[in-house]
Amino acid sequence: MIIDGKALAQEVIEDLKAERGKMNFPISLAVVAVLKDGAGLSFIRQKEKVARELDIKFISHQYPVTLKSKELRKRIVDLAKNGQIKGIVVQLPLPENFNQPMVLNAIPPEKDPDVLTEKNLGAFYLNRLKILPPVVRSIKYLIERYQITLRGQNVLIIGQGPLVGKPLALWFINQKATVISVNSRTQNLKELTLKADIIVSGAGEPDLIKKEMVKEGVIIFDAGLVTEKGTLKGDVSVEVRDKAALVTPVPGGLGPLVVAMLYRNLFDLIQLGPKGR
Amino acid sequence: MIIDGKALAQEVIEDLKAERGKMNFPISLAVVAVLKDGAGLSFIRQKEKVARELDIKFISHQYPVTLKSKELRKRIVDLAKNGQIKGIVVQLPLPENFNQPMVLNAIPPEKDPDVLTEKNLGAFYLNRLKILPPVVRSIKYLIERYQITLRGQNVLIIGQGPLVGKPLALWFINQKATVISVNSRTQNLKELTLKADIIVSGAGEPDLIKKEMVKEGVIIFDAGLVTEKGTLKGDVSVEVRDKAALVTPVPGGLGPLVVAMLYRNLFDLIQLGPKGR
Repeated sequence: MIIDGKALAQEVIEDLKAERGKMNFPISLAVVAVLKDGAGLSFIRQKEKVARELDIKFISHQYPVTLKSKELRKRIVDLAKNGQIKGIVVQLPLPENFNQPMVLNAIPPEKDPDVLTEKNLGAFYLNRLKILPPVVRSIKYLIERYQITLRGQNVLIIGQGPLVGKPLALWFINQKATVISVNSRTQNLKELTLKADIIVSGAGEPDLIKKEMVKEGVIIFDAGLVTEKGTLKGDVSVEVRDKAALVTPVPGGLGPLVVAMLYRNLFDLIQLGPKGR
Repeated sequence: MIIDGKALAQEVIEDLKAERGKMNFPISLAVVAVLKDGAGLSFIRQKEKVARELDIKFISHQYPVTLKSKELRKRIVDLAKNGQIKGIVVQLPLPENFNQPMVLNAIPPEKDPDVLTEKNLGAFYLNRLKILPPVVRSIKYLIERYQITLRGQNVLIIGQGPLVGKPLALWFINQKATVISVNSRTQNLKELTLKADIIVSGAGEPDLIKKEMVKEGVIIFDAGLVTEKGTLKGDVSVEVRDKAALVTPVPGGLGPLVVAMLYRNLFDLIQLGPKGR
């Protein structure tokens, strides 16, 4: 079955709309970006579209690469002082000349719907944060929705990056799954994909996972995302879909759900208040 | 080769002694424990012995199980106010009636040589903490000392607990190894142990790893520790030692090294100061 991420995201958004109706105060989300070549612009626009649906004021700030980390940090601190701004999102990755963790730590933990501050990540590590990094929350949502068992299952996570591979490895460990975390240096990938009950792929390498590499009935969450000749591609070949019990396509799979979960996190943070995080 | 953890720990302690000579001020370490049956007492005594060698005042507080989490938290906050106390260690696990993370978060991050506060764990997650959880630091020390390659190697971590399995899985992911994290529900353990280049075992199950389960030349760090009929036992059978290129025995392997690394962390925290952590 191919998961319709767009339809599921819309369901989440409809729930959020109903909640928004009960919140009689203005809500703003600030998105801070340092774009080298406009590559992140489409992601910002997707977030903006959902903000409009939810009657959230979308404040987008774009800074030049020449800005210093300290200055960017200062802008975030200033944004955080604004009581109407309930969440601050920094579009990642920042260009290499930035001290990324230093910038991200300027976000107050209670205004951090992307779960990127040290404090929130520490609580996430301890399995006691009430929200989850949006990609993790999206996959958790699918696991619950489709009643997927985790205990004792072999979960293969391809890639070890900060937004997909690392937080998901940790989250699946917290769920007591058998977790296999691999990277591009891993020698025996096919052997591992063939044994996996669940595969999460965040390599950003089109057609990395081919039909002969997976077992019948596998569950695949494709979090890879690259633009190849103008089209968005994930890590999983299209013909794998015949073999999978469940698979998220690219585009239209995890992508829209991750945006919806950013706002789900934002609303939870608002409802929990500064101490409840 | 069987690693002599006691000798290596003593080397670390000798280095610390030399550093201590240059620090012309009193240093105290506070150890806070809620012991149900005296089971943790021997661990506290091992720490005390090293404190004496390093001219560190060892302040040991034992509280009854009837104490409330909030009260224990208050005691830690009071200890932290004492400028001579440079480190606070909470003997884990606390009895179940305690809110463990709430208690641990009372330790100021700059006085947390065990790396148990949310803030330090967040920095550890991001690979930017200057110290490491003592078990992790001990294994890192052995990996560097014996020049063990990690990239592309299959690292199997048995157990997913908060002191061994979880932090080590994360650390090895940060080192770009292929990491396999398993628990007692994992079905195909022997298959996985046979493929592993490096095994870290923290299951606390004597003789879990037998000779026929590992390949020739494997490297094994045995972090299992149970008392069976009055003797300390690890997870690895004695006869496995013939097949291993490198193995830490129990007792006398990781144990003494972990205590030494607690003090290595303490000295680093002192030298880094409150902002350098």
